[in-house]
Amino acid sequence: MSQLSASALSFTNPSTPPSTGLTLTKFHLDKPGSGEVQVAFLYAPINPLDLLVVSGKYPVKPRHTVPGTPAPSYVPGYDGVARVIAIGEDISPSAFHEGDLVIPAGLGLGTWRSHANVPASSLLNLTSGLPSSDVPARSDVLAFSILRTVFVTAYLLLEHSRESLKPGDWIILNAATGAIASAVVQLATLRGIQSICVIRDRPDPASNQAAIDELKRYGAHTVLTESELEESAAGIQGKRIVLALDAVFGASAERLAATLAPGGTLVNYGTLGGGGPAASMRLTSRVLFWNQITVRAFRGSTYLAQRTEEEARDMVVWLAGLVVQQRLRMPSVQLVRWGNADKDGVRRAEDRPVGHAKLVWEFEWFEQLK
Amino acid sequence: MSQLSASALSFTNPSTPPSTGLTLTKFHLDKPGSGEVQVAFLYAPINPLDLLVVSGKYPVKPRHTVPGTPAPSYVPGYDGVARVIAIGEDISPSAFHEGDLVIPAGLGLGTWRSHANVPASSLLNLTSGLPSSDVPARSDVLAFSILRTVFVTAYLLLEHSRESLKPGDWIILNAATGAIASAVVQLATLRGIQSICVIRDRPDPASNQAAIDELKRYGAHTVLTESELEESAAGIQGKRIVLALDAVFGASAERLAATLAPGGTLVNYGTLGGGGPAASMRLTSRVLFWNQITVRAFRGSTYLAQRTEEEARDMVVWLAGLVVQQRLRMPSVQLVRWGNADKDGVRRAEDRPVGHAKLVWEFEWFEQLK
Repeated sequence: MSQLSASALSFTNPSTPPSTGLTLTKFHLDKPGSGEVQVAFLYAPINPLDLLVVSGKYPVKPRHTVPGTPAPSYVPGYDGVARVIAIGEDISPSAFHEGDLVIPAGLGLGTWRSHANVPASSLLNLTSGLPSSDVPARSDVLAFSILRTVFVTAYLLLEHSRESLKPGDWIILNAATGAIASAVVQLATLRGIQSICVIRDRPDPASNQAAIDELKRYGAHTVLTESELEESAAGIQGKRIVLALDAVFGASAERLAATLAPGGTLVNYGTLGGGGPAASMRLTSRVLFWNQITVRAFRGSTYLAQRTEEEARDMVVWLAGLVVQQRLRMPSVQLVRWGNADKDGVRRAEDRPVGHAKLVWEFEWFEQLK
Repeated sequence: MSQLSASALSFTNPSTPPSTGLTLTKFHLDKPGSGEVQVAFLYAPINPLDLLVVSGKYPVKPRHTVPGTPAPSYVPGYDGVARVIAIGEDISPSAFHEGDLVIPAGLGLGTWRSHANVPASSLLNLTSGLPSSDVPARSDVLAFSILRTVFVTAYLLLEHSRESLKPGDWIILNAATGAIASAVVQLATLRGIQSICVIRDRPDPASNQAAIDELKRYGAHTVLTESELEESAAGIQGKRIVLALDAVFGASAERLAATLAPGGTLVNYGTLGGGGPAASMRLTSRVLFWNQITVRAFRGSTYLAQRTEEEARDMVVWLAGLVVQQRLRMPSVQLVRWGNADKDGVRRAEDRPVGHAKLVWEFEWFEQLK
């Protein structure tokens, strides 16, 4: 059997900024070994987590290396979607077929490469989980590449507070044009939960209006800029807000906390406002004690770990089904063609101002998916 | 039957400071009506809650008034212990006996009076709940007067976090010489939970040492002053602290939060540090997000409301039993003789600096309790 020409971005030692330590390596891929599946990646996002991993600031290392390099070359990229192109021995014939769409089953798979032979157990087969009538469109496949980091995270952010969330309830979110927040708005809408979206103030009224229109299409009830929320409570008047999802921290988190109804919860899942670990929010006794609110942090992996492997898989497949049925729409991303841009894509992600669309590697496309 | 000479502190309109609106009224008490029990109060604390009620700053009004006054005169005092001295008609013979010790079954009974006829349903009979071998000593009866505000609150503060508390776990508390905190230390010790007590810095080394000795007698493992905790982590090194109970807020709460192990919880139940509703604590991303801690407020009534009447009664009787068995010791209080001091006791409570012993009215004592 002829060998496959493949390429991967990889790093041997952590580096800051991440792009400086990455190399594009071309290599030949043998046929898959026993228990392995050969895949061709279709899309893989460049996530903030990946940048942390390459710069050595995240305590989990990639589990895969580029074959045939003198020093171990770790392949970053924990998220993405691939197509099965060959199947090794000792794989159950019902588990994988050529053409199946797969995503990583866990952290560390290494998706920043064109092709790979990986253990079958490290893949989650979306095709076998979807009803056979559901043929994914190309835009659905793109959405699958962010199932884990965006849709699963959004789902867990809502689910994590499920005891208090009932149809008709109100939630409030900041950084609402972000991929996770817009997925939260859509999932909340599906559950009958009404959302108030807070977006940063844009200098340009047209781009402001575009963001508002987009969020309303996702089902947002009210969209306010940070300064509109600060200046007036008119947009939230009379609404019993039980959950605030905060990706900004600092003053923006304080504004969200102040809108909560008694007994409400503020969940922090990011510090887009800057300041890193030293960033802080001020919690007054009026908000915390009088209103009896709870403030907690969210890390998706903690909540995923509370599920069995089967439960996690069922959740991912269910979310994939919502995408194919057009009940969940893909947030805006920007595609970077693999091979042309290689590590320039990473450099662009590093310099990306907060609130801009996520970058996603686009690999070779297969016209016939099924 | 001859009428009983009684006295009560009462108010008609809210006033600040509370002492200015209170009047000591002497009146005659008829025999108890149908369904009523006549009680003589033995001890009743002057709680911060009572002062809030009299000054109209707490949204619950006393339910009892002084008989025969032209305008309704509300009797404050929600906590205390009384002795049954007469029983009206239509009371089950097994429910109350002369000499039984009773405490209020709920909020609003009005304990700042020497005697009262009250509905049997508004009383909780401690004597009938205790094994007949357990004869309470006078100091136990004094402890019963703070069962609800101190021991129940301390129990709920620990119980409220029960999912994460296991024998061997560490907790940290500030304002540790306060009545509630010292009850928490004792209840934690009974459950095998180790406590680190933080006390304010006292100018006088002898009183510092007395506070430390007292807390160690309650079972505290480590006692640190606020400045010792601020200056060095030596006292907490190597201890996985899962729960911080904060009655001070502000900088003291921030110090406690910084000691928590990943996943820990800070529960705020007071703002002794001053500043009222505007008081604030700074929550950094390092503490909240990196350490994944939760910050929440505690109000005992919220957690009591989650129990049935029977469950609440069983808990109170269980705590009373611990007192009689000398497994729970009374925190320091200062007695104020009823009738001599009348509303001067309230004035002293108003002027009380933070961290001083609670004031408790002492009424007439009955030598023969049982």
